[in-house]
Parts: sequence; C-alpha cells; structure tokens
Amino acid sequence: MSTHTFKSKYANLIERLDAIRTCKLFETLVIAVIVISALAIGANTHDLPPNAIKVLHVLDFSITVFFLFEIIIRMMVEPQFKNFFKNGWNVFDTIIVTVSLIPIDDSETVLLARLLRIFRVLRLISFVPELRMLVGALLKAIPRMGYVVLLMFVIFYMYGAVGSMFFNTVDPELWGNISVAMITMFRVVTFDNWSEVMYAVMDVYSLAWIYFLSFIFLNAFVFLNMMIGVVIDVFSQEHEKHSKEIGKGEAFEVHDTHEVVLALQQQITEMNNTLKQHITDKK
Amino acid sequence: MSTHTFKSKYANLIERLDAIRTCKLFETLVIAVIVISALAIGANTHDLPPNAIKVLHVLDFSITVFFLFEIIIRMMVEPQFKNFFKNGWNVFDTIIVTVSLIPIDDSETVLLARLLRIFRVLRLISFVPELRMLVGALLKAIPRMGYVVLLMFVIFYMYGAVGSMFFNTVDPELWGNISVAMITMFRVVTFDNWSEVMYAVMDVYSLAWIYFLSFIFLNAFVFLNMMIGVVIDVFSQEHEKHSKEIGKGEAFEVHDTHEVVLALQQQITEMNNTLKQHITDKK
Amino acid sequence: MSTHTFKSKYANLIERLDAIRTCKLFETLVIAVIVISALAIGANTHDLPPNAIKVLHVLDFSITVFFLFEIIIRMMVEPQFKNFFKNGWNVFDTIIVTVSLIPIDDSETVLLARLLRIFRVLRLISFVPELRMLVGALLKAIPRMGYVVLLMFVIFYMYGAVGSMFFNTVDPELWGNISVAMITMFRVVTFDNWSEVMYAVMDVYSLAWIYFLSFIFLNAFVFLNMMIGVVIDVFSQEHEKHSKEIGKGEAFEVHDTHEVVLALQQQITEMNNTLKQHITDKK
Amino acid sequence: MSTHTFKSKYANLIERLDAIRTCKLFETLVIAVIVISALAIGANTHDLPPNAIKVLHVLDFSITVFFLFEIIIRMMVEPQFKNFFKNGWNVFDTIIVTVSLIPIDDSETVLLARLLRIFRVLRLISFVPELRMLVGALLKAIPRMGYVVLLMFVIFYMYGAVGSMFFNTVDPELWGNISVAMITMFRVVTFDNWSEVMYAVMDVYSLAWIYFLSFIFLNAFVFLNMMIGVVIDVFSQEHEKHSKEIGKGEAFEVHDTHEVVLALQQQITEMNNTLKQHITDKK
Repeated sequence: MSTHTFKSKYANLIERLDAIRTCKLFETLVIAVIVISALAIGANTHDLPPNAIKVLHVLDFSITVFFLFEIIIRMMVEPQFKNFFKNGWNVFDTIIVTVSLIPIDDSETVLLARLLRIFRVLRLISFVPELRMLVGALLKAIPRMGYVVLLMFVIFYMYGAVGSMFFNTVDPELWGNISVAMITMFRVVTFDNWSEVMYAVMDVYSLAWIYFLSFIFLNAFVFLNMMIGVVIDVFSQEHEKHSKEIGKGEAFEVHDTHEVVLALQQQITEMNNTLKQHITDKK
Repeated sequence: MSTHTFKSKYANLIERLDAIRTCKLFETLVIAVIVISALAIGANTHDLPPNAIKVLHVLDFSITVFFLFEIIIRMMVEPQFKNFFKNGWNVFDTIIVTVSLIPIDDSETVLLARLLRIFRVLRLISFVPELRMLVGALLKAIPRMGYVVLLMFVIFYMYGAVGSMFFNTVDPELWGNISVAMITMFRVVTFDNWSEVMYAVMDVYSLAWIYFLSFIFLNAFVFLNMMIGVVIDVFSQEHEKHSKEIGKGEAFEVHDTHEVVLALQQQITEMNNTLKQHITDKK
Repeated sequence: MSTHTFKSKYANLIERLDAIRTCKLFETLVIAVIVISALAIGANTHDLPPNAIKVLHVLDFSITVFFLFEIIIRMMVEPQFKNFFKNGWNVFDTIIVTVSLIPIDDSETVLLARLLRIFRVLRLISFVPELRMLVGALLKAIPRMGYVVLLMFVIFYMYGAVGSMFFNTVDPELWGNISVAMITMFRVVTFDNWSEVMYAVMDVYSLAWIYFLSFIFLNAFVFLNMMIGVVIDVFSQEHEKHSKEIGKGEAFEVHDTHEVVLALQQQITEMNNTLKQHITDKK
Repeated sequence: MSTHTFKSKYANLIERLDAIRTCKLFETLVIAVIVISALAIGANTHDLPPNAIKVLHVLDFSITVFFLFEIIIRMMVEPQFKNFFKNGWNVFDTIIVTVSLIPIDDSETVLLARLLRIFRVLRLISFVPELRMLVGALLKAIPRMGYVVLLMFVIFYMYGAVGSMFFNTVDPELWGNISVAMITMFRVVTFDNWSEVMYAVMDVYSLAWIYFLSFIFLNAFVFLNMMIGVVIDVFSQEHEKHSKEIGKGEAFEVHDTHEVVLALQQQITEMNNTLKQHITDKK
C-alpha cells in the first residue's frame, strides 16, 4: 500500500513538474538564465573589481544549480528514461550541464572551466525551437558538402605542395612547408593582401601570376558552382516537402494533379469498357 | 444655409487639392524638391562662403514649408482622417516633416537639426512607388532572417569569449574584452587584414589557425546556406503569388490545372453514375 | 536596257558580297582582324622600337580599311537600307568604325584616337552571336536593377552626409565632404582596410562601430536580397520562355497540360450533355 | 592443347585479378596508398634528416610500383583493351602513373619529378566515385561559362588598355603596360587594397574614381548575373533529369501528368465518337 501511495505521489510530482516545465513563464525563465549566463561570461572578459568577481562566482553557482535542476526535471518527466538520450539535443544539454559541474575555483583548471562555461551559450540553440530547426537543416547539408570540401582540400594540398616546393626561397615564413603554404593559399583565396604575396613571388618567378590566378579561378569556380548548387538543392527539396505536408503551394498541386489524373485515367478506361460492353450487349 | 455653402466650398477645395496632388506636374515637383533638399544637405558638407550659407538657409526654410504644405494637402484629401495614420508611409512622412520644423539657427541643436534634415532624403523612398515596394519586400524578409542573425550572433559571442579569454595577452587592443574581440572577429569574417591578426596570435598559440579557420568556415557556411536559402524562398513565394494574381505563368497554370482536374474528376464520376444507372434501368 | 543590265550586275554583286559575308572563312577572318586589332592596342602600351611603331601604324590603317570594307558590305547586302540602323548592333558597329577613321598621326588627338581604337575590341561582342546574346540578357536586367541601385545610392548618400558631418574632424581626406565620404563608404562596403577607417573614427567617437556595422549589414542585406532575387527572376523567366519555345522541359509541359485539361473539360461537358440528352430522348 | 591450357589459366588469372580489384579491402588499400603518397609529398616540403629522406625514397619507389601494378591489373581485366583508353579517367590515371616512372634521383630533374609526383594526389579524384561525379558536373558547366569568361576578359582588356595608356605615369609598376595593368585590375576586382591604387591615381586624375567604380560595378554585375544564372540553370537541369530518372519529384510528376493527360484526351475523343456513333445507329 505504501508503495502505491509513493507511486501515486511520484506520479503526482511528475505531473506537477511537467506542468512547470511546459508553462510559458518557466520557458522564459530558462531563456533569461541562459542569457544571464552568457552575459556573465562576457563580463568575465573585462577587468573586474574583487566584489564583482565574487558576485559572478555566486551567479555561476546559481546558474549551474538551475541548469542541473532543469535537466533533472526534463529527465524525470520523460516516460521512458532511455528515450531521453535518443534525442541528440538532450545528450547535448546533459553534456553541457555535466561539464559545468567542474568547480571553477581550482586555479589550475580555471581556464578550462571558464572555457566549458562558454558552451552554455549553445543551450540557447537547443532551447529555442526555431534555432534548433535551423541547425538541423544545416546538419543535413553537411554530408553533401563534405565531398565539395574534400575536392577543395585536394586543390589546396596540391597548390600548397607546389608553392612550398618552388617559393620556399622567396619567403620561408609564407612558403616554408606545405602547412604554412596552405595557410598562405587560404589567405590568397580570401583576397587578404594576396597581391602583396603574389608580387613578392613574381619578383623571382615572373610567371607566378599563372599559379595564383589559376588557383583563385579554380577555387571560385568550384566553390560557387557547388556550394550554391547544394544550397539551392537542399532548399528546394525542403520547400517541396513542406509544400506537400501543408497541402498548399506549387509542389503539392503538381503532386495532387498527378495523382488525380492517374485516377481519372483508370475511371475513364473503366467507363469506356462499360460503354463498349453495353453497346455490344445490345447488338 | 451658410454651413451648406461652406461645406460645398470645402468639398470644392478638397477636390481641387486632390486634383493638384495627383497631377503629374505636382508629383515631379515633389521629387524635384526632395532631390534639391538632398543636394542642399550635400552642399552643407562642403566649406561654403557666407552668402551660400544664407541661400541654403532660405532654401531649407522653403523646403520645410513646401513639405508641410504637401503633407497637409494629403491629410485634407483623406476622406477619413484617422485612416491617414494607418498607412505606415504616411506616419513616416509626417514624422520626417515634423522634425524638420525644428529651427536650424540655434547653435546648440544645429548638428541635430542638420542630422534630422538628412532623413528627408528617405522621402524619396516613400514617394516613389517602386522604391516603396522594394522596401516592403525587404521588411517582409526581416523576420525570417532574424533567427539566422541570432544564430550568427551566438557564434560570434562564443568565439569572442574564447578569443578575449586566450588572446588577451597577445594584443589587448584587439582582444581586450568580449566587445572588442567581437569587432575583431567581424573584421576577420570580412577578410580585412585578417591574416595579420591570425599571424600575430599564431606567434604565441601556434594552433590558433584552427580557431580562425573554423570560425570563417562556420560563418561562411551558416551565412551562405541560410541567407541564400531565405532570399530564394521569399522570392519564389512572391513569384508564385504574382503569377497567380496576373493569371499567367507556371505557378498559375499549375494551380488552375489542379482545380480543373479536380472538377473533371467530379464530372466524370457523375457521368459514370448516369451511365451505369441508364444501363441498370434498361436491364 | 542598260539600267536593267546595271541592276542585274548590281544584284549579281550583292549576291556575291552576301556569299562572302556569310562564308565561314570570312567570319573567321573578321574575328582574326578584331583579335589582331586588340593585340595591336595591347602592343601600343609597351615601349616599342620606332620600327615596330611604324608597323603598328600600317597595321592600324589596314584594320581601319578592313572594318570599313566589312561594314560597307553589310550595308549593301541589306535589302532595305533604312532597316540597317534599326538593329542596335549595326549602329554600334558603324559608330565604332566611323570614329576609327580619325587619323592617329595628329599629335594632339593621338591619345583620343588611341582611346577610340580600344572600342574596336567591343566588335568581338557584336560579332560573336553568343556574346551578343549574353549582353542582350544583361541589358534586359538593367531596368529592374535600376531601382535597387537607386535605393543603395540613397543609403550611401545618407551615410555619406552623416559621416562628413561628424567625422570631418577625424580625417578630412576621408570625410572632408559628402563626395569623399561616399567613396570612403564604398571602400568600407568592399571591406578594403575598412577596419582601419573604423578604428580611426572610434578613437574619437567610441560608438562609431554602430554606424559602420549598420551600414555594412544594411548594404549586404539590400544587395544580397535584391540582386540575387532579380537575377534568379530574370533567369527563371528566360528559362520558362525558352522551354515553351522549344516545346520541351517542365515549363512547356505545365503550360501544355493546362491547355489540354481545359480542352478536356469542354469535351467532357459536351459528352455529358449528349449522354443526358440521349437518356432523356429515350424516356 | 597447351594454348588452350594457357588461355584457361590466363582466364583464371584475370578472374582472380578482377576479384582482387573489386574487393573492398583492395579499394581501401589503394585509397590508403594515395593518401600516403600525398603525405610523402607533404613531408618532402619540410626539412628532413637524411634517414627520413632515404625512407621517403623507398616509399616513393614502393608507391610507384604499387600504382603500376594496380593500373596493369585494371588494363588486364578490361575485356577489350582498346576500350580501356576510351574512359577519360583511365587515360588520366595512366598518364599520372607513367610520368611517375621518371626516376627522382637525377639531381637535374629532381624538381620536375617531385612536381609530377604531386599529380598523384589527383588520383584520389579519379578513384572516389563521388569526386569523379563532382568533377564531371563541373566540366559540363565549363562550356557555358566559357563565353562569360570571354566577355569578362574583353572588359578587363579594355580597362587594362585605358589604364596603361593614362595612368602609366602615375605608377609604372602597376600600369606600365597592358599585362601589369590587367593584373592590377584583377587586384581591384578582388578588393585587395584597391582604394590605395585608386587614391594614388586620383591624386593625378581626380575623376579616376569613375574608371574604378564603373569597372567594379560592370564586373560585379556581369559576374553575379551570369555565374549565378549559369549555375542555377545547370543545377535545375540536373535536378529535372534526375527527378525523371528516379520517377519521383516535381519534374517527373509534371512530365508524367502531361503524358497521361494527352493519353486521356485521345481516350475521351474515342469514347465520345463511340457514344455518338451508338446514338446515330439507334436513330
């Protein structure tokens, strides 16, 4: 009987916690705490009087406790505990909250602890549904972009190897080995004082402009072609899917017209047969 | 009777004012005055002889009076006065004209008054229908872009916090606190001498290129993906809507085909039933 | 009779000229001459020995004569002479060839004459059909882009006025008056050492970053939104038009489906009436 | 009989080689060797102890032998030897492997040999199907982009000629002749310290900003319009084609609806005729 009472009480508690979790006020409070946590991180980067540092310590402790409390609520209200970690965002939140538990006082790990607290800002993304959707859409585009990035890496690697082989003597700081040469090439591709780099090389190898211009064209060409292509593709797919889901817009109408027309064809074939049968019967 | 005469006279006046307001010549005059007002603002930024300054003062007064006159006409011809302020562009014009009434002579507020006069140039947007439409289309895209901007701000904030935490000692002017660090990161993202910033940091932290390159890739990736996506989305919606309104183009044809096909299906089902009924009847 | 003979001979000549004009060899020759003319212009920019200059003079004379000859042929084979100038490209070619007739020897106008000869390179565009089509497509997009450019000019003008009003004392060379301020703002918008400009201003007005960042965002936002929108719009229209012309592709199929479905509706309504009439008749 | 045995043994061998070639392990091995070969190239750009250089020599020899072995297998398993070179990627691989056979020891050609070894990295593209597809898609877009690049070259050439003609005296290093002027113009179009170049010219020719701004606008306009247009065009075509091939998506549905509707029209016309005939017969 006492177990039953406990269970009933527990169910009662869960219900209440769920009511808290889904109420508008609590959601606003969580967002406010995330923003305050972000502001505290920002404040920490300024030179602060000792009192302010103490206040920030207390604040940090409170935020940690609050986040712990919030995630425990979410875990408790989950009907099946093991499903909780099937949602990537829950795993993400749990990790961020857990690493926050590392105490900030220890002087050795203070920098690490402060670094980990920065990731709390990411909870804004996991908490606001619109941001979660945006990030989800981004993650979907990554696999398709992966090969484009690989192709560009191959181009960078080859130009980096050629550059470090030939221009090593011109400026070892820019072309010393393939690593620095690739960083230099990235600088060229972002057009950051790239002509300075090229002019210096052209003083020794007067045809070096071919190397630089071909690199710029190749990358701009590959990048523009592919990135824009992938982006448009992903978005038009999303658009089509969304249009079909809401049953409105061009993609839905095209889809529905297609289905109706196929049904019509069957119906008319059937009708035609009925008619022919009727005529034959009469004869 | 006299009230009636007055009303009649007033109606007469309104009619005349409306005729003035909508005549082509008056519209050209308003645009000319707006352009002259813009040129006067431009002239004010040059060193001018005292005579020219006097001329500009008289000109400014005339423009203010003319704008006041024009907006009063527009208010008067409005059948329902309270509807006048329901149009955002009318509110916009009224505010600009009202703040222009602040006299420019007072030496203390002269800079403020001149600043407010610059907003008169915006009347070009509120007066030319094509520009009004463009700005309207832009304003529509803002809410959808808001979350993209928020996401990018989160990225900037986190990188700014990390940067000001670690690179503070390298160059306090660039990394002193989170605010200046974020401005530095914006400079990096616009590729303005960003390699200089990176090389300076790499002298201390040799792996700092990961920080910079990941930031550039993340932002370029988010920005490209989303901005282009949103822009294309908004435009394709506008295009679809416009196509349906004018009853021409692909979107209209798809929509109309869909409706006709649905009607056809009903008609054929009906015809089929008629035919079957007829055959059954004869048997 | 002699008139007849002359006419016949003339017709004969025209036929031959037309044969020359349209033969592949002649077309290749014209393109070769245009390229040689371009190379001569390029050669002229180098320091040349006197002999080479003489050769270039002779070459220039030959090219001028050849172009004159080619355009006269084209004028003669035109059945209706007045139609010749209805084609914008013909007018374009005629002007370029005519201004080339200005002798290059006169020392005073030598720079002008050489400048005019540069426009001969443009004949490559008017001669190659693909380039002519590309330029035609570009010209079509200009009116729609006009208002976007006007809107951006308004933004530049306003920021230029504010900049020259407040930052005049910081650096008169960059902010002296509205003209130089607008050039400075263009420099900012192209991200060319813009942070240097901003840092200099921020030393005096610490909030100036709002001015610069809002300007960059506003322009990037307006530009991206509109330019991409207009480009996509123009291209999708061209694509739709082309698809309908060749009777292939999605746009054609949508269009044709729409027409066929409308015809079907009429046919079925008619058939339905026939059927009903028939049933009624029998009863 | 012995010939038969040999043939049988040979067929047996081919079968085994084909089994090796297509097994997952061998594919992974080839990719690993390509990556190791790339890493060896990268390692070569660093200063290395003599032992490491020896190791790299042995490694290079092994890689060369392995690639030779792999390509010979691929040649042998090809049923028709002459078909082997009909595939562009096979030709590409054969050339890369053949040039790798040049010994690296000879001190004179060492740089050339090392340069040629860099091309081995490209084998990653020819071996990974996804990269091969990406490069194939790029190559398809080249012809359409060719004329855009030609048009931009014409603009560069003309501005280069004008620049080298007028601004030669300002800075011979930037404007000395048409070649360096075109490189300078490319620097301007990439916004790399372009305002510095412009300000220097404006000190002599105060209206030079027209030259620079018109060039930037012209190129941005042409480039944006065309590149984006071409990219979108190519991608939408690919998308349409793919949609029809897999029998899913908007383009397929539009296509299929069109065909079904055309078939329906014929069917209904036929049915209508049957009905009319029937009615006429009864009368």
